[in-house]
Amino acid sequence: MKLTKSLVVGAALSALPTLALAQDAPGFDEIGPYIMTTLLFCMAGFLVFFMAAGFAMLEGGLVRSKNVTMQMTKNIGLFSIAAIMYWLVGFNTMYPGDFNGYFAIGGQTVLDPVGVAAADAALDYASVGSDFFFQLVFVAATASIVSGALAERIKLWPFLIFVVVLTGFMYPISGSWKWGLGWLDAAGFQDFAGSTVVHSVGGWAALAGAIVLGPRLGKYKDGKVNPMPGSNLALATLGTFILWLGWFGFNGGSQLAMGTVGDVSDVSRIFANTNMAAAAGAVTALILTQVLYKKPDLTMVLNGALAGLVSITAEPLAPTLFGALWIGAIGGVIVVFAVPLLDKLKIDDVVGAIPVHLFAGIWGTMAVVFYNSDASPGTQIMGIIAYGVFTFVASLVVWFILKAVMGIRVGEEEEIAGLDMSEMGMEAYPEFSKG
Amino acid sequence: MKLTKSLVVGAALSALPTLALAQDAPGFDEIGPYIMTTLLFCMAGFLVFFMAAGFAMLEGGLVRSKNVTMQMTKNIGLFSIAAIMYWLVGFNTMYPGDFNGYFAIGGQTVLDPVGVAAADAALDYASVGSDFFFQLVFVAATASIVSGALAERIKLWPFLIFVVVLTGFMYPISGSWKWGLGWLDAAGFQDFAGSTVVHSVGGWAALAGAIVLGPRLGKYKDGKVNPMPGSNLALATLGTFILWLGWFGFNGGSQLAMGTVGDVSDVSRIFANTNMAAAAGAVTALILTQVLYKKPDLTMVLNGALAGLVSITAEPLAPTLFGALWIGAIGGVIVVFAVPLLDKLKIDDVVGAIPVHLFAGIWGTMAVVFYNSDASPGTQIMGIIAYGVFTFVASLVVWFILKAVMGIRVGEEEEIAGLDMSEMGMEAYPEFSKG
Amino acid sequence: MKLTKSLVVGAALSALPTLALAQDAPGFDEIGPYIMTTLLFCMAGFLVFFMAAGFAMLEGGLVRSKNVTMQMTKNIGLFSIAAIMYWLVGFNTMYPGDFNGYFAIGGQTVLDPVGVAAADAALDYASVGSDFFFQLVFVAATASIVSGALAERIKLWPFLIFVVVLTGFMYPISGSWKWGLGWLDAAGFQDFAGSTVVHSVGGWAALAGAIVLGPRLGKYKDGKVNPMPGSNLALATLGTFILWLGWFGFNGGSQLAMGTVGDVSDVSRIFANTNMAAAAGAVTALILTQVLYKKPDLTMVLNGALAGLVSITAEPLAPTLFGALWIGAIGGVIVVFAVPLLDKLKIDDVVGAIPVHLFAGIWGTMAVVFYNSDASPGTQIMGIIAYGVFTFVASLVVWFILKAVMGIRVGEEEEIAGLDMSEMGMEAYPEFSKG
Repeated sequence: MKLTKSLVVGAALSALPTLALAQDAPGFDEIGPYIMTTLLFCMAGFLVFFMAAGFAMLEGGLVRSKNVTMQMTKNIGLFSIAAIMYWLVGFNTMYPGDFNGYFAIGGQTVLDPVGVAAADAALDYASVGSDFFFQLVFVAATASIVSGALAERIKLWPFLIFVVVLTGFMYPISGSWKWGLGWLDAAGFQDFAGSTVVHSVGGWAALAGAIVLGPRLGKYKDGKVNPMPGSNLALATLGTFILWLGWFGFNGGSQLAMGTVGDVSDVSRIFANTNMAAAAGAVTALILTQVLYKKPDLTMVLNGALAGLVSITAEPLAPTLFGALWIGAIGGVIVVFAVPLLDKLKIDDVVGAIPVHLFAGIWGTMAVVFYNSDASPGTQIMGIIAYGVFTFVASLVVWFILKAVMGIRVGEEEEIAGLDMSEMGMEAYPEFSKG
Repeated sequence: MKLTKSLVVGAALSALPTLALAQDAPGFDEIGPYIMTTLLFCMAGFLVFFMAAGFAMLEGGLVRSKNVTMQMTKNIGLFSIAAIMYWLVGFNTMYPGDFNGYFAIGGQTVLDPVGVAAADAALDYASVGSDFFFQLVFVAATASIVSGALAERIKLWPFLIFVVVLTGFMYPISGSWKWGLGWLDAAGFQDFAGSTVVHSVGGWAALAGAIVLGPRLGKYKDGKVNPMPGSNLALATLGTFILWLGWFGFNGGSQLAMGTVGDVSDVSRIFANTNMAAAAGAVTALILTQVLYKKPDLTMVLNGALAGLVSITAEPLAPTLFGALWIGAIGGVIVVFAVPLLDKLKIDDVVGAIPVHLFAGIWGTMAVVFYNSDASPGTQIMGIIAYGVFTFVASLVVWFILKAVMGIRVGEEEEIAGLDMSEMGMEAYPEFSKG
Repeated sequence: MKLTKSLVVGAALSALPTLALAQDAPGFDEIGPYIMTTLLFCMAGFLVFFMAAGFAMLEGGLVRSKNVTMQMTKNIGLFSIAAIMYWLVGFNTMYPGDFNGYFAIGGQTVLDPVGVAAADAALDYASVGSDFFFQLVFVAATASIVSGALAERIKLWPFLIFVVVLTGFMYPISGSWKWGLGWLDAAGFQDFAGSTVVHSVGGWAALAGAIVLGPRLGKYKDGKVNPMPGSNLALATLGTFILWLGWFGFNGGSQLAMGTVGDVSDVSRIFANTNMAAAAGAVTALILTQVLYKKPDLTMVLNGALAGLVSITAEPLAPTLFGALWIGAIGGVIVVFAVPLLDKLKIDDVVGAIPVHLFAGIWGTMAVVFYNSDASPGTQIMGIIAYGVFTFVASLVVWFILKAVMGIRVGEEEEIAGLDMSEMGMEAYPEFSKG
């Protein structure tokens, strides 16, 4: 369909080459599921893509204004690098075909040929392009988690090099254990859309980075936690809503099929459950902060919604709506208690990424056992530990190497001045005077 | 499809369990419409979901910076509460099945079972999950209308309690009269996507609240209207665009079917008409403010677009594009004249929600008679009055009870200091000094 | 489906008129492609619609805060005017049916009748409504390109009158040469989604305007270029992500079909390639600004991503992912070198629209020859020149007439004070004091 764009109404129409299927071409009973599933991946894929904007706005709203340009640069940079690395090696590392179950390194992704014939397509699944695109936007989400936790003090280039390793190798290798039909899949580990495979992996990588990097200057001083409020809570709220929107694609698309009554109904069931878990997480954090601190805390509410979403991600299909509600609500509880806990441990996580993605991710992975009879607590714990050990250790190693080779933290003066002026020479809000 | 996520290219592919329909399974002629309509609800649903972000940005941009954190909290809170209440009681109150036509109280929503079989699904409609999700995001829109009008002075918790009543009971009960096949539907009242059922209901609830609550301090002083400009018009513009985007789902999804040539064509017709009405409302407000005030007024243009959208919502299908144009244009006129009128009545509506949603909603409901021969002016007026009386009176009662029991308005000092510091202890833009 | 909205679960369901296809109605083998392609246009259309918000945020973030209200007004105004003009005359000018290949003036767009029967629909294509909506959002993108380049000094009304001419006449006439099956299509010119037809046309119109209008006061002084940093880089980043999102619709929808295995696979292939080109453009600009200026430049990275997108737009289907990578990367290179080049020529393009849309548009149009054997360098050059000469000359004429008749530029005092206060009497950020 490259020749023309829109076809004129009326006379010219009848002259067109007909698109109707030829006599002996397969009918919709054969090709309908492929078309619907490919569409599902495209649609879910653009929703998850948009989560990159959500993370950028959330993080840009929660850092101080002197670091916003840097945070934007990191976020658009990490998405772009993830896209390239996942094509170059990640996708085929994660879905390696003939596979020993533990480790493979794949080559570049090759798409279906243009105008692929039905006979040459994976009619029981979807097009390679749609599958690749859908998986690619997931890996970018993992990297976004890291960028939030380490904000306001990490140098740009070491961070981006970490993203190269994370998105090209670490995430795909560990991802293959479950979604590439590797050893954890064989063992019965359950993770529908990635509470562990995506979110806690991002959380572990962030935790390792936060430990190696150390807290921001002045964050923990004389035994007290010094709050450093985000510069733009409207933006942070927008980011949360965008992430919530994207999560319909994240979880719904993970049904991996939309061409039967059961599959499309399941996609919609996932939408309803995902929404419920987010709502429950937000309401829980709202009530809990009112009760605990006598004042509702917007950043906790935002993170509560996100924690609800992470919590339902390992099993968004099987629970009833009530199940989604209490699973998400516990996610909200986790955030409210985990944020101060991290501060007590002097682990400085600027946006609350570790509570939201790691802690709620672990919770969500365990919660699978309540609604999915294929899941056992032991296997879920084994999976959590396997992903945790691998990602945390590998991340530590990479962070230490980066620290030794090029340094990962800006100087004290640069940090105080803000990364925007010191590292980039460009302020995000140059005209608004700072109070 | 819970076991694996992406399936490896090549050799492993052939080993997969085939998804092809079994010999005796129903073919696409039977299941295609169900799949397409379920997809329509999912897609339209996520678009309407995103309107929650649109309302938040619009309202966050039109309030003063000292109230932005509170406005964000209200918006994410109201959506979350709506989601829970609509599941708990609202959905089955609104669509009660065996129904006396006036009043029913439903129980919790129960989704289709996982992987529902074609034989057990509503093949002539769509999955319960998709239907529930689509209807749920509508009720949240109703509540968002209220939050904008009452901004900058209402306390958080009484507002959220009002949302509980509105989304769990008031909206579902009145909604059942038309969309639950109740007495107004039987009487022939026409409201395709909710100019009355959604928008004017939200507007009536807001009007009742604005009257009980009273205007902001200093808004009307010595017989003069004191303008209180919004703090972030870029954000307000973004919110308007997001709402416009969401409206394609709002109106398009209300076709309630996408699996025939006629239905999918109608969805696209609705898209085109919806877009035209918004454009006409915006252009009309732009020209009219230039003519009347010698300067174009951006906030009027934004509200003009929204009023155009509300105006076409009662009948987005039947009009021609020219019909959509003039119906939307009158919406724009209404906004330009209604905003100062409300000020004359000393009804303080912070974002213009009452002109946009109530006045243009009434107009849109009446405009149905020009293009839909099933509609009669008398029945449309009857419906408008029924929704108005019920919602306005019920809202007044709830607002008065809340006022008596716990108070609904912050103190004078708190209002002057701004709700963010006084009620939440958290500024939205803590670093930007105020002029 | 106008009567009722949601259908009650249980007993009431069986009483409904069945939606199943009648015995002798065409089955999904006949109507499936029409349904899927109409859906593609609706979905791609709302994505491209949202690009209007993307342009508004990008431009609102890159102008100074004193001009933001005006920039928002221009952007919502231009979209609305484009919607009306394209209905009134544009669509049928561009797709004129019986056509001499060079020039036609069409009348108003007429949609398919409500509930069009399969027998009366263009079963080998899609509904008129979906096609019109999809094409309409493209023309608005063209006008958005102009608004960015001419920001901060052009008067509102002359700009909007230019938009009337551009969207009602100039763009549709030149568009008909290729997409209306006119002389350039007959000659073999290739432009899949509009590197030339949309982007460079917008760029030429912007270039003509920038020349006639002259640079902002103080931009080029004493032989030096005076940087005027954008007021809100978070907003500009959001705008870029929204544009990137919209581009999946822009390029994917231009497949113009989704109802066969080949077509839906191609749509997904286009998604993957489009994403890759954007990523490559961003990474290239990131690395290049680091190397050249020792500091990464966020605005260049944003424009690099956009240039990557424009570059792949003429042929997003045929290239491999590696092809998309290098085509997009060269787009990023172009931006980094073209922005200072324009400054050297004292052509003041506020947001970099000319490098991104015109220069990368030309590059993308030439790049077609590497992957599409139907394209020849000579014909591509001929098309580029034809669109350039026509649009640039026609634009110059319109700009000069507007200048002579009503003036196109605000006074010096107004420009220094900012367009928001001088022309609109309304600041975008009235509370934030300026540094």
